[in-house]
Amino acid sequence: MRAVVYRNGELVLGAYADPIPAAGQVLVKTRACGICGSDLHFCDHAQAFTNLASRAGIASMEVDLCRDIVLGHEFCGEIMEFGPSADRRFKPGQLVCSLPLAIGPTGARTIGYSDEYPGGLGEYMVLTEALLLPVPNGLPATCAALTEPMAVGWHAVEIAQVQPHHIPVVIGCGPVGLAVVAALKHKQVAPIIASDPSPDRRALALRMGADAVVDPREESPFRQAEKIARPVGQGGALSSSLLSKSQMIFECVGVPGMLRHAMDGASDGSEIMVVGACMQPDAIEPMIGMFKALTIKFSRTYTGEEFAAVLHMIGEGALDVSPLVTDVIGLSDVPSAFEALRSPGAQAKVIVDPWR
Amino acid sequence: MRAVVYRNGELVLGAYADPIPAAGQVLVKTRACGICGSDLHFCDHAQAFTNLASRAGIASMEVDLCRDIVLGHEFCGEIMEFGPSADRRFKPGQLVCSLPLAIGPTGARTIGYSDEYPGGLGEYMVLTEALLLPVPNGLPATCAALTEPMAVGWHAVEIAQVQPHHIPVVIGCGPVGLAVVAALKHKQVAPIIASDPSPDRRALALRMGADAVVDPREESPFRQAEKIARPVGQGGALSSSLLSKSQMIFECVGVPGMLRHAMDGASDGSEIMVVGACMQPDAIEPMIGMFKALTIKFSRTYTGEEFAAVLHMIGEGALDVSPLVTDVIGLSDVPSAFEALRSPGAQAKVIVDPWR
Repeated sequence: MRAVVYRNGELVLGAYADPIPAAGQVLVKTRACGICGSDLHFCDHAQAFTNLASRAGIASMEVDLCRDIVLGHEFCGEIMEFGPSADRRFKPGQLVCSLPLAIGPTGARTIGYSDEYPGGLGEYMVLTEALLLPVPNGLPATCAALTEPMAVGWHAVEIAQVQPHHIPVVIGCGPVGLAVVAALKHKQVAPIIASDPSPDRRALALRMGADAVVDPREESPFRQAEKIARPVGQGGALSSSLLSKSQMIFECVGVPGMLRHAMDGASDGSEIMVVGACMQPDAIEPMIGMFKALTIKFSRTYTGEEFAAVLHMIGEGALDVSPLVTDVIGLSDVPSAFEALRSPGAQAKVIVDPWR
Repeated sequence: MRAVVYRNGELVLGAYADPIPAAGQVLVKTRACGICGSDLHFCDHAQAFTNLASRAGIASMEVDLCRDIVLGHEFCGEIMEFGPSADRRFKPGQLVCSLPLAIGPTGARTIGYSDEYPGGLGEYMVLTEALLLPVPNGLPATCAALTEPMAVGWHAVEIAQVQPHHIPVVIGCGPVGLAVVAALKHKQVAPIIASDPSPDRRALALRMGADAVVDPREESPFRQAEKIARPVGQGGALSSSLLSKSQMIFECVGVPGMLRHAMDGASDGSEIMVVGACMQPDAIEPMIGMFKALTIKFSRTYTGEEFAAVLHMIGEGALDVSPLVTDVIGLSDVPSAFEALRSPGAQAKVIVDPWR
């Protein structure tokens, strides 16, 4: 089949063996697959990524970098064929989503970071029948493919347990930051402050539900949050202190320096949710954390229940993801799209349709 | 008065102006003062310490390093004289403890990190009458002075909110680590695993309530915790997974590299309480945090209620601090004691008696 292959450190449009469904697996035609920031990071830091996963004990991410890898873990597929001993719960032609996890004879493997299971940047994939979720309500595949990144944001907001004394501050309005904004909005948390240097992404953040957006080159989002927490005219030392709120900061950028920046800007007692994946070592100042009594919580993907719930909410229109899809491209455009996405600008989610 | 003075980056035994109690303040004779790891760190990184405090907005720690500073914030004093308009709740001769906070005409200042209020490494101090706590039950001053470091450990355990699925792992058995062990023991958390390269400190950890001690040069405390969580003979993939517990790690060393080390050793879903004060920038690996879904919580001192409760518990014998006092020295021995404490060995808490 045609696929974009990560080979010898490069992304190339090439041929990849047609995947064959084993027992309990189904063959799907990839109908849509999003390009994720982690895919870009993987291309730059593949060895570091696999080493870190191995050291963290994530066996499903063990990958041989000498073999071809087809990236893509944000996908929607159309059922084509069933492997042996299938339940056949769904009919061929059914659009399905799935956690990016393949369960097969060699154990569990992460689809999109595997040398065994091709991800969504190819024409076909095999998925695990037991994990399939039917796409509801005639939702287009491009929107259904947003389930994965939306679930990442949803999970971060779930484990953050935002309280009334928190002001949420979302740093970075790429797809993950926008997913966090949408989840906060769905939970009726307000006011939501979002920060991104790109005016287009700030406009998207407003559309997804942010109450105030900030260009961090011009204004600190943390000071903006403090201003909102302590309205002018209600000043005085005592009332300021009574009104002061801590911040629930969602770090959705994932490059070195952002964590230190967030700790530096955070107000007393704030919490920092790390949602952006930074693959390099990063320096922080522990004393700033102690003086301010900060908490840093690292968010890891989502649960299966959250993934299913997010697909349901997208299907019901409770989470509107259509503004996030800023481009749909074919396989041949993927390598150049990866290059373009390295300097984030107007784009939010670029969807790949391998059959385009 | 005689005092050990931090002057031009050095600790010297010298003269310091006798402190005079202002309104609401009392003059005390310093009866005992502990040497804290933070005092050692301050001597090495005074400029960094004050810069960090200033950036974190801790106004009470603003200090002019060109002026003489008398360190010492773990103290017990004996009331001598009252300043103007005092309540005189206690009589002269009464032993008292206090939060290391002086409230005076210039605002709140941290005693022991102030160019205005001398700390406990001098013959006299002024304290704030409203903050005084009488030492109960004839408790010796050397033990009452342990209230402060014990409160640091107590607070860390309070905010950790240890749950039944947690195995506590205490990294570093200096006074703060031992205080954490004692607080865990008091809360009947078990088993408690403690780690320190010093055999004397490991023996102290056992005496304070640790259930297992580890020499980290020979065995990983994190693996030890996993072994305890998954007893041999109850193996098998399913039962291992059901029995697996996450770790509540108390990082009580506070030197660069320890946080990364703790993240690297932590099991899935673990939390790391940062109790040791590391004054330098420190590198971590955010992806390890994400892959393992870790939480890092920075513990900041204690509340006034916790401080008072800890003094009460020490007075009642509910927290036995006497094993922690490994030496009592006079002022002239302080500079060499600071040097010796840089290479931690047998010592836990060295108490200074300025009148010895």
